[in-house]
This record gives sequence, structure tokens and C-alpha cells, in this order.
Amino acid sequence: MEHISAGKNVFVYPMPVALLGSVVNGKPNFMALGWFSRVNANPPLIGCGVGKHHHTTFGIRESQTFSINVPDASMIREVDYCGLVSGRDVDKSALFSVFYGETGTAPMIRECPLCLECRLVGSMENPTNEFFVGEIVASWTREQFMTEGKPDIKKINPLLLTMPDNRYWTVGEEVGAAWSAGRDLAREK
Amino acid sequence: MEHISAGKNVFVYPMPVALLGSVVNGKPNFMALGWFSRVNANPPLIGCGVGKHHHTTFGIRESQTFSINVPDASMIREVDYCGLVSGRDVDKSALFSVFYGETGTAPMIRECPLCLECRLVGSMENPTNEFFVGEIVASWTREQFMTEGKPDIKKINPLLLTMPDNRYWTVGEEVGAAWSAGRDLAREK
Repeated sequence: MEHISAGKNVFVYPMPVALLGSVVNGKPNFMALGWFSRVNANPPLIGCGVGKHHHTTFGIRESQTFSINVPDASMIREVDYCGLVSGRDVDKSALFSVFYGETGTAPMIRECPLCLECRLVGSMENPTNEFFVGEIVASWTREQFMTEGKPDIKKINPLLLTMPDNRYWTVGEEVGAAWSAGRDLAREK
Repeated sequence: MEHISAGKNVFVYPMPVALLGSVVNGKPNFMALGWFSRVNANPPLIGCGVGKHHHTTFGIRESQTFSINVPDASMIREVDYCGLVSGRDVDKSALFSVFYGETGTAPMIRECPLCLECRLVGSMENPTNEFFVGEIVASWTREQFMTEGKPDIKKINPLLLTMPDNRYWTVGEEVGAAWSAGRDLAREK
């Protein structure tokens, strides 16, 4: 059976969901973020695609820092709200309990199980979005979200997003071990 | 309760899993990919972080095209295998049934429910990885993976990856509608 076209504007399935934090005009602000990824192994760099006219863009340029906060599924209303309204129009600074880490200028969310604190190291300008690349200078979590010293996704219970159907999902079952599940195939070949 | 440090090298939870396809020295090759994201809205651009010395890096530079193939969970062994071995050492071209789309040079995987075909439009060099940005010129799926004309994640049944615990996961339950779940909060404020 042949594949058929699904159009050009198909989004990656599934996208992780985060709240991108920055200080804009002296105030902590957060936007819903689905477009982000690690981009470099050493040092640990992470990049995020942000609409050029988003309030956040000005904050990141100004402070040269940002945070990526991973919410748990119970925060779905607040996460979605942060994607519906702009910090230009409403003050989102009181929505969460905010804390700061090593940089002192990347606002992080106490309610989020995992927060990555980043210092801007570069950016790539694309037609409608700027892709900000930051070095992860620290990450923050709580003991209750870790197993054997590592953040545990089942305890964090993050959200996923699919587009263009615009639905949120949770993470399902563990189905295998990475750098391991294909070892028998490597032996066979 | 205070957050505690979880180190610098924390990976985003959760990462989508794909097979990155390129033709290297005239042969289709596929690597396991967890570092990719949309980076621009219009035109639809997607970026992927690839180790500089990976075989794939040479293929993308050579052909100026690549593909992002989303496997379903039943392909876990093959996906993991593609992450364990390099195309420099083994021929991965016969592992899947390969097809080509509009570019003619981005090898795509018939067994994958969703394939994005990309033309390289730029790249960003980082210390250990190159971040390749491509325009999605077409995407390919089958009727059986769509609902009301859109790719359906429950039918695609993709894999997720977490690091540094190195585990694969499936997608779980639908928990809400995006650009909607926070509307009551917007009304309250």
C-alpha cells in the first residue's frame, strides 16, 4: 500500500509541553512552549522556537536568560491559559510561585516538577520565529520526582501536545530500554 | 519545599522518537533521532541536532535533503538498532522498505506511519552537534493513520524517549484540548 500526502504543515508527533519563562520589562512571564529540543550534547544546549512578536522574545533578548519549566498534567488549565493570552495584555507573574537559580534572571515555577535554567548562547533567525539556543546551567526538581537520582517521568507526569488536532496527552506505558532493545538485532546482522 | 539541583545534563521530558533518513554515498541511511523540533511556523521548518561526526551529517550536507520518519511502537527493535550502529560500519539500507517523494533524495520508510520530507534551508553549528533546519516540503502517511483528515497519534502509536534513564514509552491518555482547556481561566482573570 502506498503512502498518501498529509500536507506540509504536519507537526511532530508528539511534542513535549513546557512553560517558557523570561523576565520582560522587569516582570516574570511564561508562555506555553511545544517547539523545543536539545541541540548539542556537550555543553548541554537546548533550543526553542518562539514567534518573533511574542512578548517572550523581547524578554529573552533583554535578560539573555530563559527557563524551560515542565508542568505536570494537573496544571493543564494554567498551561493552556499561558498559551491563550500574551504577557503584553495580561500579567502572568502571579499565576505561579516563582523562584530564581544561578542566573538570577530566569524565572522558574515552583509548581513545576522540573525546571531547566538556561543562559542564551546564540540564536537563529527564521522567517516567523526566532530559535533561541541556551546552555542549561542548572536544572531543578524535588526528591519526590526522582528515582535513583534521576528525574522519573512517571512521577513528573508531563503533558504532550499534538497538532493540528490540538490535543493534550499524558505519557503511557514503558515499552523498552534504549541502547538495548535493538542489541539482539545488532548481533544477528 | 525547595527545589534541589538535578544537574546540568538533564534531558527534556519526554522526547519524540524518529528515524532521520538521508542518502550517504549513494545509499539510504537511518539514524535514531530524539533531538528535533519545529522551529518556524511559516514556512513549516523543522530542525534536528546531529552529532558532527555522525554518518548522517555527511549525507544531509551532500544531498541537502533529509526525512523524519515516525515509527510505531512495534518497530522498537529496529529503531534502537539504528541508534546502536553507524552507517559507516553497517549497511542499514535494507532494514526497511524505502520510498522517495518530491525531492527524490530524501529516503523515507514505508513501514513508518508518518514521514516528513525536508529540504535543507540552513544550519547552526554548535560545539559537538550540527543543527540542521529543513523546510517540510511534503508529509506522507496512510488513510488508516488518519482521523477526519488529520494524522491521529493513537493510530500512529509512536515512541517517546527519556534520558538519562534511557527508557522508551508510548503515548497515554488524551487529557484535554489545546487552546481551549484554559479558556475558563482566561474568562476569570
